[in-house]
Amino acid sequence: MAKSINVTVWNEYIHERKSKRVKVIYPNGMHKAIANYLNLQDGLSAATSSLEQPEHGLTEQVLSQSDVLIWWGHMAHDQVAEEIVQRVQRHVLEGMGLIVLHSGHISKIFRRLMGTSCSLGWREGKDRQRIWNLVPGHAITQGIGDAIELGIEETYAERFDIPEPDELLFITWSSTGYVLRSGCVFNRGHGRIFYFSPGHETFPTFHNSEILRVITNAVRYTARRLRRDYYCPNLPNLEKDQ
Amino acid sequence: MAKSINVTVWNEYIHERKSKRVKVIYPNGMHKAIANYLNLQDGLSAATSSLEQPEHGLTEQVLSQSDVLIWWGHMAHDQVAEEIVQRVQRHVLEGMGLIVLHSGHISKIFRRLMGTSCSLGWREGKDRQRIWNLVPGHAITQGIGDAIELGIEETYAERFDIPEPDELLFITWSSTGYVLRSGCVFNRGHGRIFYFSPGHETFPTFHNSEILRVITNAVRYTARRLRRDYYCPNLPNLEKDQ
Amino acid sequence: MAKSINVTVWNEYIHERKSKRVKVIYPNGMHKAIANYLNLQDGLSAATSSLEQPEHGLTEQVLSQSDVLIWWGHMAHDQVAEEIVQRVQRHVLEGMGLIVLHSGHISKIFRRLMGTSCSLGWREGKDRQRIWNLVPGHAITQGIGDAIELGIEETYAERFDIPEPDELLFITWSSTGYVLRSGCVFNRGHGRIFYFSPGHETFPTFHNSEILRVITNAVRYTARRLRRDYYCPNLPNLEKDQ
Amino acid sequence: MAKSINVTVWNEYIHERKSKRVKVIYPNGMHKAIANYLNLQDGLSAATSSLEQPEHGLTEQVLSQSDVLIWWGHMAHDQVAEEIVQRVQRHVLEGMGLIVLHSGHISKIFRRLMGTSCSLGWREGKDRQRIWNLVPGHAITQGIGDAIELGIEETYAERFDIPEPDELLFITWSSTGYVLRSGCVFNRGHGRIFYFSPGHETFPTFHNSEILRVITNAVRYTARRLRRDYYCPNLPNLEKDQ
Repeated sequence: MAKSINVTVWNEYIHERKSKRVKVIYPNGMHKAIANYLNLQDGLSAATSSLEQPEHGLTEQVLSQSDVLIWWGHMAHDQVAEEIVQRVQRHVLEGMGLIVLHSGHISKIFRRLMGTSCSLGWREGKDRQRIWNLVPGHAITQGIGDAIELGIEETYAERFDIPEPDELLFITWSSTGYVLRSGCVFNRGHGRIFYFSPGHETFPTFHNSEILRVITNAVRYTARRLRRDYYCPNLPNLEKDQ
Repeated sequence: MAKSINVTVWNEYIHERKSKRVKVIYPNGMHKAIANYLNLQDGLSAATSSLEQPEHGLTEQVLSQSDVLIWWGHMAHDQVAEEIVQRVQRHVLEGMGLIVLHSGHISKIFRRLMGTSCSLGWREGKDRQRIWNLVPGHAITQGIGDAIELGIEETYAERFDIPEPDELLFITWSSTGYVLRSGCVFNRGHGRIFYFSPGHETFPTFHNSEILRVITNAVRYTARRLRRDYYCPNLPNLEKDQ
Repeated sequence: MAKSINVTVWNEYIHERKSKRVKVIYPNGMHKAIANYLNLQDGLSAATSSLEQPEHGLTEQVLSQSDVLIWWGHMAHDQVAEEIVQRVQRHVLEGMGLIVLHSGHISKIFRRLMGTSCSLGWREGKDRQRIWNLVPGHAITQGIGDAIELGIEETYAERFDIPEPDELLFITWSSTGYVLRSGCVFNRGHGRIFYFSPGHETFPTFHNSEILRVITNAVRYTARRLRRDYYCPNLPNLEKDQ
Repeated sequence: MAKSINVTVWNEYIHERKSKRVKVIYPNGMHKAIANYLNLQDGLSAATSSLEQPEHGLTEQVLSQSDVLIWWGHMAHDQVAEEIVQRVQRHVLEGMGLIVLHSGHISKIFRRLMGTSCSLGWREGKDRQRIWNLVPGHAITQGIGDAIELGIEETYAERFDIPEPDELLFITWSSTGYVLRSGCVFNRGHGRIFYFSPGHETFPTFHNSEILRVITNAVRYTARRLRRDYYCPNLPNLEKDQ
């Protein structure tokens, strides 16, 4: 039997405790909602961590045992310690998968891995969102049709300041006139990163079965495939090869 | 008449002052050798900066007036102040070109823009280098034939821990059995970055006319095309578009 | 003084002669409208060819003298002779630029260069189109703002069956709920190809100054940079290199 | 239990019958050697087809039941019927995997899917080959170390006239001074294509356990993930979405 994929779902977990409106949707936090769903899937084992824990719940041990880290943050990006950001980056480069959700686009860890500002345009209103599936044969889009009808959610819009994605899987259409490259795979070091834009805290997006399906697929796709230091040594003398 | 392209050539400028062997090759430093050559080319205007200057010679004013920054560093990457690294990154994302030479692959600024370790293998010896030109029609390879016969130089070798380049222009063959993706273009923010691997301090690489030709072409290719903040604002209400 | 860039604008030129509605917009054909505009630009020299001419006006001599070929076709793709398609392909691979407009996505030449079906979804109606500019610093987007407000035009929609573009410059938003990767650069052989989706025959799209600006920029960007056979010879014996 | 992956190994099967030297290495043809190996792997089921069979052994039925097609051809590319090439292309675009080996780089089917000449340089001699692994975490490189020491084999060399690969996995170093992008993934339509350069008929390359490992991995990676027509219909009226 195949070994489980270990997932850590990280959430800053502030909105859900401060805002009644958010708490009604995610009584125990978005991280618990996502982890609970993942734990129902074959071969996945999910735990959670959050900002207020020591080392934000992202100790060396936790990361070493994680095949995938899922990241949601919004209002407290600045409170994430630089040391932890560097640690997460190292684990990604060594092979850990990383799934960055919604407002995580502007998190320290995502910006550090991309090298760009990761800025984008945004607006809240009655904007409806439809997420187009560009690559129906991809592992991440299995079970998803031509598009996901997300309905009303926050609009995120181009220009999204990211490097050209290694794989562009989704483009979101917003009823108010915007588009976004909303599902993007980036290979960095030995790790795979997936950015997926839905998930504003005031909407029940992480209860949507299609969104959860994409996240589940992305867990399997980005799961650690090796554990390998990325520093190359001084090369041996190869004169024998001449 | 077209405006000049302003280039700043940055060098940590340590080897040339400490090592007789290097000083013989570059009496005034590699940065001066490169800048002098660039100043002989039509439409280019080059100045130099180095590590020991206040703010490493990379003040806000210097960078604002630079269309391209060329970077060579080796033994003192750690001495480059974090604040200056962030400043250079911001200027690249706003549109300034950046050309990273040789051991600059492991500089703070290159690693920050790539998001990866930028590690590679290396060895010094009698290794001969041949730099294959994959894209003869590209702006950066104009005037270059099928390959540049560099002769003996330090070997840099895969695995080179970089994101997939947006354009792969050169692959270097080393006589001792190695290969390297040695000429790579990366688009980041509004800026263009070109990494080019030749240029160990103990070889007269920056007196080689083909290497200088590539650098000159790269200056023209990466030169600032716009000056634009990369942060997107809160979007206007677009209900009129409905 | 720099040599002119020679452009050949090819059109099947059927709608404009058969349909009054189209003829009113383009009395002499879309090809003439585009060529006339290009001839007003510095350093460009444009001529036209069309389907009904001998060899469709694309003789060996015409193509040899063309730095860029622009292609518009819609209802008569099947009437383009296989031999001419192969000839155009050879010229592109040798370095000629190719700009494919609108319904040219399904032309023989574009499908042959892409290797895919190049199929996409489409609908005609009151659909409004907004073309988002993803790369404001690119040569092709110079003079274009955040987006081009095209207004009502035919909708083209994903999934667009193309290889991943080498550069994705525009995504079009349609008011009826669709998106399209609408401005795509592909490098093939020594040639550059730009696909740009606007241009249905019943709309005055090729009188729109922003659309014409994009086409003009694309002419400069894709213009032949070299003329080089793409077949590699048997390699010389290089034992001297050992 | 998971369904088997069905593989068809196609070979022009001429060298092995005409040349004693080749026959000694592959008594029943390269296709049989590869298929026999694949049949020993978990979950794979391989059959063979060859040029001299009716429809080259690539009937509609055979292709419909194939999840992956492996292709080796060299001296008889021109004898492959155009109709069969189009049929194979259609199946790839609908989702069938395709693995193109060695001299298959210049086959009709590979050139048709790439859109370029697929030409490269080549020489036969005492050239030693080392195949560098750029992406140790990739599904295709599982079980492969830093490099495959292939020893003496035919040299294939840049410039290789292909579109930029979607994934570049291997670069080959040749002792006589050449390099090649030798392991390349291309996504086309709903299908995945892997080109892998080793496999000259006069060498026992397809008995090499590392080469066979790469091919096996590539079978799993490119195996059909869906079966889907790639033509998009006229789009429904979506005014209800407004």
